[in-house]
Amino acid sequence: MDNSHSQFGGQSKIRWLIEKTSEDWVNLAISNPMEILLDHAHCERKAAGVALQLMFRYVSEPGLSAVLSPLAREELEHFERVLSILNSRGRKLEKLVSPPYGAILAKNIRKDEPRRMLDSFLVAGLIEARSHERMTLLSIHSPDLELRNLYSDLLKSEARHFGIYWRLADERFDRNTLTSRLEELAKVESDALVEMHQEPRMHS
Amino acid sequence: MDNSHSQFGGQSKIRWLIEKTSEDWVNLAISNPMEILLDHAHCERKAAGVALQLMFRYVSEPGLSAVLSPLAREELEHFERVLSILNSRGRKLEKLVSPPYGAILAKNIRKDEPRRMLDSFLVAGLIEARSHERMTLLSIHSPDLELRNLYSDLLKSEARHFGIYWRLADERFDRNTLTSRLEELAKVESDALVEMHQEPRMHS
Repeated sequence: MDNSHSQFGGQSKIRWLIEKTSEDWVNLAISNPMEILLDHAHCERKAAGVALQLMFRYVSEPGLSAVLSPLAREELEHFERVLSILNSRGRKLEKLVSPPYGAILAKNIRKDEPRRMLDSFLVAGLIEARSHERMTLLSIHSPDLELRNLYSDLLKSEARHFGIYWRLADERFDRNTLTSRLEELAKVESDALVEMHQEPRMHS
Repeated sequence: MDNSHSQFGGQSKIRWLIEKTSEDWVNLAISNPMEILLDHAHCERKAAGVALQLMFRYVSEPGLSAVLSPLAREELEHFERVLSILNSRGRKLEKLVSPPYGAILAKNIRKDEPRRMLDSFLVAGLIEARSHERMTLLSIHSPDLELRNLYSDLLKSEARHFGIYWRLADERFDRNTLTSRLEELAKVESDALVEMHQEPRMHS
């Protein structure tokens, strides 16, 4: 995991993820692989949706679409890969109740520009960073070889993705504003996971 | 163009496009290649947005995401390709006033399910069919070799895309309901183009 952080010029990992994922989550997740897989499919679909939403909202922002469009494509590719494993195991895509995580983070995106843009990049980056951390755990601890391989393949892109959101923010905001806001949002992100959601989810 | 229609089991082209594009549009378009290219980038971005929106709205619909996700990825690939030609010619992505075409079609999507689903597939298919027809014209009449090649490459996917929307509808609705509604919407689509929008757009 350390390699993935070198692309932030030595920026410490603590800035993205204040608290590590608990063992309890790992146990919940590996005991419910199909539900985690289904939730994961939704996460990839939603991540593509976020990238596209940003492309629509900031349509004239130079250099934004050129990086978010390939990112959205890659999330969709992951979605298709997870969906095909689900299907091969006799499951279909179906709705799942979401844990409060995404809504808590979304509520903390400020409404006025350019702060809304900054917060949107940082929240998207935080979600990618947490997904990366959790996929790493699943790629090690899942008892299922096909799933270990899946997570191990996908987590490489997740690392690139939070790098992309970091750069989008870093190119547009001064470093002090950026890091102090990231610290605040990283606290919100970790706090949202302290009380574990009882349903097995990628972001329980 | 005839090959692209064989996948509809001999369904006549007239059902999709009631009126052919006028020579006036071709002249307007080839006299304003950069504006058409810019509008085209937006069309590809919006087409990806439509596919993703349908995936979100009908998240549990069996077999829908598995075909719309690759379609959305392909639209994004086209978006990136058009964007890179724009950039190589010194232009950036910027907002453009849309012609009334898209809004007129959207207004004709009925609000109650399952009719909303049927209309959404047919409208998306009609837009792809018109894009296919116009890109074919540009691939022949554009005086610019790079653009002729671009349109000629992209139009193959557009034909596949309206085939996908046709099948999504055909798998879920009876053929009579489908063809009679397509006839109505195809009339709306052609009527929306009778009075040519004065600005050069893909769907002026």
